[in-house]
Amino acid sequence: MSKLPAILSRLDADLDASLARLSTWIEIPSIGTDPAYNADTRRAAEWLRADLESLGFEASLRETGGQPVVLAHRRKPGAPHVLFYGHYDVQPVDPLNLWVDDPFKPVVKEIAPGRKVITGRGACDDKGQVMTFVEALRATLAETGDLPVSLTIIVEGEEESGSANLPGFVKANAEELKADLALICDTGMWDRETPAITASLRGMVYQEVTITCADRDLHSGLFGGAAANPIHVLAGIIAQFKDETGRITIPGFYDGVEEPTNSQKADWADLGLTEAEFLGQIGLKHSIGEKGRMLLEQIQSRPTCDVNGIWGGYTGEGTKTVIASKASAKVSFRLVGKQDPHKIAAAFQQFVRERLPDDISAEFIAHGASPAIAVPVDSPALLKAQAALTEEWGRKAITIGSGGSIPVAADFKSLLGMDTLLVGFGLDDDRVHSPNEKYDLSSFHKGQRSWARILQVLGA
Amino acid sequence: MSKLPAILSRLDADLDASLARLSTWIEIPSIGTDPAYNADTRRAAEWLRADLESLGFEASLRETGGQPVVLAHRRKPGAPHVLFYGHYDVQPVDPLNLWVDDPFKPVVKEIAPGRKVITGRGACDDKGQVMTFVEALRATLAETGDLPVSLTIIVEGEEESGSANLPGFVKANAEELKADLALICDTGMWDRETPAITASLRGMVYQEVTITCADRDLHSGLFGGAAANPIHVLAGIIAQFKDETGRITIPGFYDGVEEPTNSQKADWADLGLTEAEFLGQIGLKHSIGEKGRMLLEQIQSRPTCDVNGIWGGYTGEGTKTVIASKASAKVSFRLVGKQDPHKIAAAFQQFVRERLPDDISAEFIAHGASPAIAVPVDSPALLKAQAALTEEWGRKAITIGSGGSIPVAADFKSLLGMDTLLVGFGLDDDRVHSPNEKYDLSSFHKGQRSWARILQVLGA
Repeated sequence: MSKLPAILSRLDADLDASLARLSTWIEIPSIGTDPAYNADTRRAAEWLRADLESLGFEASLRETGGQPVVLAHRRKPGAPHVLFYGHYDVQPVDPLNLWVDDPFKPVVKEIAPGRKVITGRGACDDKGQVMTFVEALRATLAETGDLPVSLTIIVEGEEESGSANLPGFVKANAEELKADLALICDTGMWDRETPAITASLRGMVYQEVTITCADRDLHSGLFGGAAANPIHVLAGIIAQFKDETGRITIPGFYDGVEEPTNSQKADWADLGLTEAEFLGQIGLKHSIGEKGRMLLEQIQSRPTCDVNGIWGGYTGEGTKTVIASKASAKVSFRLVGKQDPHKIAAAFQQFVRERLPDDISAEFIAHGASPAIAVPVDSPALLKAQAALTEEWGRKAITIGSGGSIPVAADFKSLLGMDTLLVGFGLDDDRVHSPNEKYDLSSFHKGQRSWARILQVLGA
Repeated sequence: MSKLPAILSRLDADLDASLARLSTWIEIPSIGTDPAYNADTRRAAEWLRADLESLGFEASLRETGGQPVVLAHRRKPGAPHVLFYGHYDVQPVDPLNLWVDDPFKPVVKEIAPGRKVITGRGACDDKGQVMTFVEALRATLAETGDLPVSLTIIVEGEEESGSANLPGFVKANAEELKADLALICDTGMWDRETPAITASLRGMVYQEVTITCADRDLHSGLFGGAAANPIHVLAGIIAQFKDETGRITIPGFYDGVEEPTNSQKADWADLGLTEAEFLGQIGLKHSIGEKGRMLLEQIQSRPTCDVNGIWGGYTGEGTKTVIASKASAKVSFRLVGKQDPHKIAAAFQQFVRERLPDDISAEFIAHGASPAIAVPVDSPALLKAQAALTEEWGRKAITIGSGGSIPVAADFKSLLGMDTLLVGFGLDDDRVHSPNEKYDLSSFHKGQRSWARILQVLGA
């Protein structure tokens, strides 16, 4: 007889306690990208390790050269072997003054009638999402004393900074990590009522460029009119990244990008997402995407280029009449299809260099390069998970493309030959990477119930 | 019989003591543009006030709403009345890590055989230059018990931030400040051996612009490809400030700019300053100035546009895949001839606004607007000063145009009907506004001697 009803009832009864556990984890400021938070980041890893150990996992912190990986095993001979991936590091919180509540003191509050959320950095991305899975394990173990699958859990601390050490770790520990299927909980739903399985993810190239003109900062009154200004040089190059149709101009950039099929276009048209609807929620009206392409195509299946940060010269209060020596920008590209991240990184650098006068130089820092991935939409595992999600939410779970990047899914495929099932419960208004990140309690609670169901069907 | 030889000998003998006084003043970090230094800035004003009082001046700090003005009088009925202007505020010191010595712990050192300098923020601009004048007064008073002129001294604390309160103060105290001639010591020499009188100064418009796209920071994976990015918008506008010939494209910008005469062109050609020579000292080879114009014309008599600072998005270590809500830049224009600063500020704002899509906004902060000025090169005062400088340095003092801006000279003309004589001893390699600012001891010492001579001839 199925133990599922008992497991689901236990999750219902345990919701407040599970929220308290999530809060405790969010309170640890694991900003993995900032060395000042290294001790906290490790503390967040240790918190999860101890929790998994308490559930009967053989759980350890494994060193990577950067932030440690939480690795846990609970083996069940003869059962399908599943690898769950998540991350415990969170994005930086600046600008801090825009947060209504302290990013590391989570609050549960009602933001609309009947709609409660938990706030905080990592509330969704990815601590809240990881805990939907862990809570499903806790309830399943409490009710049945066992799991339906053999399970390996890997939760890293460098996802927000490009997972620099993860591919090496996966490669070095391939035997230990290889499973029949990977599960990742770091994606979103279609909307608050409609669950989704993400079947494709964009890849990413992230580069930092610094332009140097004079060998020192200059007085604009003495040298202005003659000395090159790196801010103008950098702005002039950034202005050339896209043409007037929104198309990215770096040579070869679109190599490997496939045109959508008519059936894909029809699906997008059916979903009927308008610019006013999608951009209205963030105070904008018009898409700046490629002309002649549907909004859903722009955000899900086309590659992008965004300058994520820029700085140079005097940025304090008041004035300084300086011509800076240097100006810098962080530039990222979301990749799709078969775009080659290493070719694009090289083409980007060449694009910049070709636009420099001969006494002006550019230096680059590579922050990561990963290809896009697509998972088969008709695999038995995906169909089982889809049915379980549909059962839980009372609405058909749909398969979607995501604009985001989860490079590890590509690594699992290329290094371990393993497909990934991407199920997550984030919402578009969760403000991940922004001030006032939150996670809906409906996502957290029904997410736990969804995983309990998926574990049962994957083990069957 | 002339007391001048005795005054000059006293200055020679007193050099070390005068350096010690300058050091003490430099040690007070009067970064007037940064509110965190308000107490220090006032302390620097008080230090000068007390020094002038010790010389027999009636000296006080006068409130302006911003940093106080040091105002001092020593009247000599019947003698010509001269107003001396300088400033005691200094530029910010960032980036601090590029300073070899502490900017507020001056060091006297030899940087080449026989060439000594004093280091520190304000060593030249403008504390060192002001003290050349004050030391000349000290020696003259010590030797003669009197000054050859009736003297008013005004030293302000907001020059580096655009002198916001000075015009109002000059207007409100016009009767007290009105003199026959103004002297300013805030300009440079032609080179280390050739003294100069600055006969024209560029004006300035300084604006800060902030572009706002979405109403919050966004995740580039969710919104990239559709949401407008203010860094791209700002870069695209900055890239349009100049055309491919280096000409500034803001409509009406060149209204009031006069073409040089053939005689001016011949003078520039005679001086023979090459790009390699002028820009080589800062590690550059080529001017980015307007094509078809001589280097000296570009830096002295043509208007300019420079972005002095830019910032937006994530600028910390590592990565953040954010699309910022806002991006900002500080932009300044050096003006010449009869260019109207208020018209140019308005034209700049319109230029930016016209390039914004309809759901993207721009906000502006005006940091100052002053016209260029030119002083007659054949006035009796200028000819007298020129002769005195030639005598001191053993080389003909030349009249030059300066790329810098000293708005107060325009205010003295428009509000008090008074001409200004601009004599200074700065050098191109003084690194004013940059790390490692210094002042040559030859400038400091012979500058004092120059002022002692000029005071005598102006009083004669």
